[in-house]
Amino acid sequence: MDDLERFVTQDAFARHVGVEVLEYGGGRATARLAVGPEHLNSAGCLHGGAVFSLADAAFSAASNSHGVLALSIEASVSYFAAVTRGTLTAEAREIACTPRLATYLIDVRDEEGTLVAQLRGTVYRKRSPIGDVLTP
Amino acid sequence: MDDLERFVTQDAFARHVGVEVLEYGGGRATARLAVGPEHLNSAGCLHGGAVFSLADAAFSAASNSHGVLALSIEASVSYFAAVTRGTLTAEAREIACTPRLATYLIDVRDEEGTLVAQLRGTVYRKRSPIGDVLTP
Amino acid sequence: MDDLERFVTQDAFARHVGVEVLEYGGGRATARLAVGPEHLNSAGCLHGGAVFSLADAAFSAASNSHGVLALSIEASVSYFAAVTRGTLTAEAREIACTPRLATYLIDVRDEEGTLVAQLRGTVYRKRSPIGDVLTP
Amino acid sequence: MDDLERFVTQDAFARHVGVEVLEYGGGRATARLAVGPEHLNSAGCLHGGAVFSLADAAFSAASNSHGVLALSIEASVSYFAAVTRGTLTAEAREIACTPRLATYLIDVRDEEGTLVAQLRGTVYRKRSPIGDVLTP
Repeated sequence: MDDLERFVTQDAFARHVGVEVLEYGGGRATARLAVGPEHLNSAGCLHGGAVFSLADAAFSAASNSHGVLALSIEASVSYFAAVTRGTLTAEAREIACTPRLATYLIDVRDEEGTLVAQLRGTVYRKRSPIGDVLTP
Repeated sequence: MDDLERFVTQDAFARHVGVEVLEYGGGRATARLAVGPEHLNSAGCLHGGAVFSLADAAFSAASNSHGVLALSIEASVSYFAAVTRGTLTAEAREIACTPRLATYLIDVRDEEGTLVAQLRGTVYRKRSPIGDVLTP
Repeated sequence: MDDLERFVTQDAFARHVGVEVLEYGGGRATARLAVGPEHLNSAGCLHGGAVFSLADAAFSAASNSHGVLALSIEASVSYFAAVTRGTLTAEAREIACTPRLATYLIDVRDEEGTLVAQLRGTVYRKRSPIGDVLTP
Repeated sequence: MDDLERFVTQDAFARHVGVEVLEYGGGRATARLAVGPEHLNSAGCLHGGAVFSLADAAFSAASNSHGVLALSIEASVSYFAAVTRGTLTAEAREIACTPRLATYLIDVRDEEGTLVAQLRGTVYRKRSPIGDVLTP
């Protein structure tokens, strides 16, 4: 398992929430969340924090996929539809990349392909390789 | 326990993440998260999704504190410092409120009072009372 | 000239800045700005406010193109490259639309097609037709 | 006139729009706009681009007030009330500052002190002094 793979699979919070990163590379990534009762808010709908965590996992995998450590500076999310069940997929793509900064757009869709949320986020790119921050 | 209290305490995802809402009322709310190993990302820092979920819980309690159902439309978060341990507190305050829309600013601080993140979010206010969406 | 056309062409601020709306309809719109000395900031680059005003004109034309009045609630803009000259084009497309809320993504590109900025914005849709707010 | 003063007063776009920067220093700044007919949109209200340009001028003066060049990465604006006349004031304050990144919150108020919009923006701080980018 290489450093990038360890970086993606060692994410304790993503695992705790139940987010799975399916693939990543070249500034892109895909992640998935099967909605369970632990992801709902008091109104019986998928919690904003769960939607964000799914999108953020795809954002993180995509932005670190070049092998240099990328740290989130900011992100904005818009919600378009309430979700109560099923499996959601988040697809992240790079829309801009300079040596120190890069920006990603992450679409979150339900099983019918309806866009239920969209996140845009920006990272600061460190000069260090990803392996430096991993625990041995 | 009244409807608003049930709304705040029945939030399954906030409980799953470990967020506690401490108080709410009059467009304000305070929430807390004790950072544990399950909240960290692969770099050993508090995950953006965990920071967001903490801030979002305060946002939700504040925006629903008037007793009418408030649904998140969008939120933007900025991160200012990496956190690896300790307890974070999120304080939400209403900065604008009209019959159909309201906006909140949520400061997330560590135990020393340093601002580690800030979220701003907008809700759409339904005409229905909160009790209508609660499960019996 | 119909109400929508008057709405788009009567925009005093867009005219003052020099933004031209080229086409609009069906939740989409295109606008253009020829960068002049009056659009620059002190560093000799296109001012953030000018980029925003260009993108906002496309956003407004797209969101009002259904014939019902749409008011901006919020917008977030990311800048990817400094611009010093040339003509910029903003293309707005609708990514979500419900009876009361709709969201648009606006790409701003230079003459080579490079993405120099992106705006995402949300509107609140009134029940009134556009003609109601126009001055006679 | 020192470099910072030239930087603030040489802004061609701010002048074109009619924004005046009143004071700046220590990560803060204040700017003002007297609303005229050229700032209105087709609905007779202050254009979102004009509100943004006012807030952005305060953001720029505040973020450059330390004497090192600060470039906007992103900004998000929320609108709370329609404005049709009068003078608006934008106050920017620094909410976080590290060697390479800093974030500002800008409140836009009308003459009665009502919050009509709020912008939050982040800059990337170059290592070069402001004087380097000024035209002689």
